[in-house]
Amino acid sequence: MLNKGVTLWFTGLSGAGKTTISKGVEHELRVRSCPVEVLDGDVIRTCLSKELGFSKKDRDTNIRRIGFVANLLSRNGIVAITATISPYRSVRNEIRMMIDNFVEVYVNAPLEVCERRDVKGLYAKARAGEIKGFTGIDDPYEEPLKPEIVCHTAEESIEESVTKIIASLEHLGYIPDSKFLPDIVRNY
Amino acid sequence: MLNKGVTLWFTGLSGAGKTTISKGVEHELRVRSCPVEVLDGDVIRTCLSKELGFSKKDRDTNIRRIGFVANLLSRNGIVAITATISPYRSVRNEIRMMIDNFVEVYVNAPLEVCERRDVKGLYAKARAGEIKGFTGIDDPYEEPLKPEIVCHTAEESIEESVTKIIASLEHLGYIPDSKFLPDIVRNY
Repeated sequence: MLNKGVTLWFTGLSGAGKTTISKGVEHELRVRSCPVEVLDGDVIRTCLSKELGFSKKDRDTNIRRIGFVANLLSRNGIVAITATISPYRSVRNEIRMMIDNFVEVYVNAPLEVCERRDVKGLYAKARAGEIKGFTGIDDPYEEPLKPEIVCHTAEESIEESVTKIIASLEHLGYIPDSKFLPDIVRNY
Repeated sequence: MLNKGVTLWFTGLSGAGKTTISKGVEHELRVRSCPVEVLDGDVIRTCLSKELGFSKKDRDTNIRRIGFVANLLSRNGIVAITATISPYRSVRNEIRMMIDNFVEVYVNAPLEVCERRDVKGLYAKARAGEIKGFTGIDDPYEEPLKPEIVCHTAEESIEESVTKIIASLEHLGYIPDSKFLPDIVRNY
């Protein structure tokens, strides 16, 4: 089967679980021999956008760059997974219009939960005023209005979120249905 | 046949023929149904590096970004063609070390020839001092020492250059040999 390619665009607050879930999805796709690339926010900031800050303008520029690269990949049959906060609705929708196969995944966890997790210790710094313009604290996060997939990570496990996303990709026809996979892969 | 993927890195002076030859190679690959993307210098400057200028540091940053994207594509089976002056040897070699399948194409035409062509009118502006730091005029171009392919565009036609490159890609095993193509494609 020829791969169709798709951009799987994760969005959500810092600490909501974007990177963790995207890695789980990546793993599941590799097991199925689907070509996949994860464009992680931190890596992209280093490799493509080192000079950019976190103003709305700079965030939008960063998101457009990621969209440009994701489009190059997904139009060539690769599953391009992006995992960035991407807080602004308008630029996410701009990317959606540019990319033929676009699936938005809203990794939705309440701010209190993300702040309690505080995996990178960033919320504490933002509350202390050491980081300015932090999404959810003193910078806005605009929820997607019609995301294709929502993962409620305060209530569901990582595995449940990953399973839901894989099932959606199958249902949407972007990856082969698991019932057509060889037993050794299906039972992995 | 599973595509191996390769980065085809064009380098040479402005006006040497990089963009024209790369488009010819792209066309030939599409006829053969090979997945291909051209990362043209001007497009990349707009989409990935708008804020960068033409200092050595900024040029190197731009080249590293193109290398990052070309690597993502070619490691997924796509022929990534880059067409930029990329005047500095060290950063070209840095990209070469990063990318598994890397083929450097030196589009070699004497400065006088490129200046006579002056397709974009840039040499005239550089000579008039309206553009500073123009490669070949007041900024260096460091020739590749061991490019896989050299196209002498002052002496050979575009078609000859394209044919030479396609033959090299076949010989190196990056694209299927034309004798295995269906007649309808071979006689295109």
